[in-house]
Amino acid sequence: MTQIINNKQDMVDQSLDGVAFIHKHRLERVAKTGIIKRRDLQSVRGKVALISGGGSGHEPAHFGYVGAGMLSASVSGPVFVPPSSAEIYQAIQLMKEASEVLLIIKNFEADVREFLLAEKKAKQDGFLIDHVIVDDDCSVEEGSLKKRRRGVAGTVFVHKILGAAAAEGKSLSELKEMGEEVIANMNTLGVALHSGKITGETKELFQLSEGQISFGIGIHGEAGYRVEPFYSSEYLANELVNKLAAQSDDIKAHDLAIMINGLGSTTAMEQFIFANDVQRLLQLEGIQVAFRKAGNFMTSTNMAGISLSFLILKDTSWLTYLEAGTDSFAW
Amino acid sequence: MTQIINNKQDMVDQSLDGVAFIHKHRLERVAKTGIIKRRDLQSVRGKVALISGGGSGHEPAHFGYVGAGMLSASVSGPVFVPPSSAEIYQAIQLMKEASEVLLIIKNFEADVREFLLAEKKAKQDGFLIDHVIVDDDCSVEEGSLKKRRRGVAGTVFVHKILGAAAAEGKSLSELKEMGEEVIANMNTLGVALHSGKITGETKELFQLSEGQISFGIGIHGEAGYRVEPFYSSEYLANELVNKLAAQSDDIKAHDLAIMINGLGSTTAMEQFIFANDVQRLLQLEGIQVAFRKAGNFMTSTNMAGISLSFLILKDTSWLTYLEAGTDSFAW
Repeated sequence: MTQIINNKQDMVDQSLDGVAFIHKHRLERVAKTGIIKRRDLQSVRGKVALISGGGSGHEPAHFGYVGAGMLSASVSGPVFVPPSSAEIYQAIQLMKEASEVLLIIKNFEADVREFLLAEKKAKQDGFLIDHVIVDDDCSVEEGSLKKRRRGVAGTVFVHKILGAAAAEGKSLSELKEMGEEVIANMNTLGVALHSGKITGETKELFQLSEGQISFGIGIHGEAGYRVEPFYSSEYLANELVNKLAAQSDDIKAHDLAIMINGLGSTTAMEQFIFANDVQRLLQLEGIQVAFRKAGNFMTSTNMAGISLSFLILKDTSWLTYLEAGTDSFAW
Repeated sequence: MTQIINNKQDMVDQSLDGVAFIHKHRLERVAKTGIIKRRDLQSVRGKVALISGGGSGHEPAHFGYVGAGMLSASVSGPVFVPPSSAEIYQAIQLMKEASEVLLIIKNFEADVREFLLAEKKAKQDGFLIDHVIVDDDCSVEEGSLKKRRRGVAGTVFVHKILGAAAAEGKSLSELKEMGEEVIANMNTLGVALHSGKITGETKELFQLSEGQISFGIGIHGEAGYRVEPFYSSEYLANELVNKLAAQSDDIKAHDLAIMINGLGSTTAMEQFIFANDVQRLLQLEGIQVAFRKAGNFMTSTNMAGISLSFLILKDTSWLTYLEAGTDSFAW
């Protein structure tokens, strides 16, 4: 299907200029880079600055989470390709007024490599810098059943919790520790009803017959581990809630934060129908939900599908940080 | 394409329960109705309460605009069918603590009929109540070239400006007058690259060949007035900016507020690319933009397409009201 672009090679560049135009009161783009930063970076003075990023195609991730109480900057690469270590390093260098810098990295080999190279270089310059690696995807590899542990929609919960904690003045080591605890208590599972395709291309990323659903898809067009017929939203919610609840043996001992994430072309009506089914199942299971989000937070271009994230709120401060204010436009 | 629903007849009902679940800290649903209302309705005491609504299929409109500084309640009907006058009347009755009530109606015959019937009944009960009718669509009828003047995405600007003015304590007559001035200075034009279809149905709402674009589509699957090949985002922006600018002879004398609205399955990347093209054209034309929004504000189920709205800011207070805070989740 035709999409509203000019040409494939300029689309990321042009869309970042569009972001800077629409949100010009709060955000600005560093020209000719994938960096979107807060206009008021001086407010990070003496605090920890948070930087995240990754390939494009996941909009509004990550620039939609740049703002007071979340990220100080995001770095976007080409579609499904992480930004270079040089650009990540350039973003870090903008944080000279911050006391320390924390990188939030999605667990994909190329992303981890580029971010850690940039971190190493910044350390040599004297930056106090560290990172957390988000690996909330609890889907498994077809065959080996090994957990894939990619970084997916739960990354946005990490942006929010650590962003609010950083704004409150927490130190780099406190944030790293908190981030790792949050990540250890978070799981996400995604499904696709249609793979979608990279904007500007015509080939579907993977094949899925009409009426079939793929469990455990990634956010870069990776096929899932199991295909089965789609029965209903309720059936789907049942599968996902059961699988996510099974990741932890003490899920009923704590409140839960959940995120229902549209993967691109899933309508808001579908997201809310699914949310309602999730609600009923959690109620039946006696699982308490203290925090809820539904929307398009971490997409996979125009994939039709949804992901569900569970974060077990083991520390009550996490809920406070989730509920804290932010002016980032996509939260 | 399969969608995440349970069955067609329950989908609106179930999605409204989903909305109430996800946003339970601020919103609640009046059981078995299409009414979503603020939990803290007591804060409207002594002020004008704003109510809007219409058929479903336009999510997040209108429940996404219920909150402090915007609507007090929204009323959703079946997909593309307005709520009954009885349900609108029921929503009005919840506003007993408000001093007065203003209905914001999209200009479709059936919507106007149901809302005005409810208004009449409420007046008989002694309510101080009035309405504005939003007709921002400046597309024309094929053949007659008569302007259709339907109410489309600009309705959200009316929610925001009047909502903020009502929260500030403006009276019903002041709000009606301001609303009519805002509406008189607002135009919207939409295009589709793919008609989409009603959730739960398989038939496309209208036929559009691959690579074709339909100008002047409605938000209920109404075909546009002209089909032509899609060339580029820039070409499209040029068409829309020119047509919208031509609606007014003093557009350069004032600041402009613009809204880029995704119609359902248009990705955020496309919206921002289009935003960038709009920015460049407005700059060339010497038109000043003081306020910008891009996102899915008023959809047409899963239509692929976009609308552009221009509001000429003839009164500087309108900008203040657009920029005022709100906790409605879709603004």
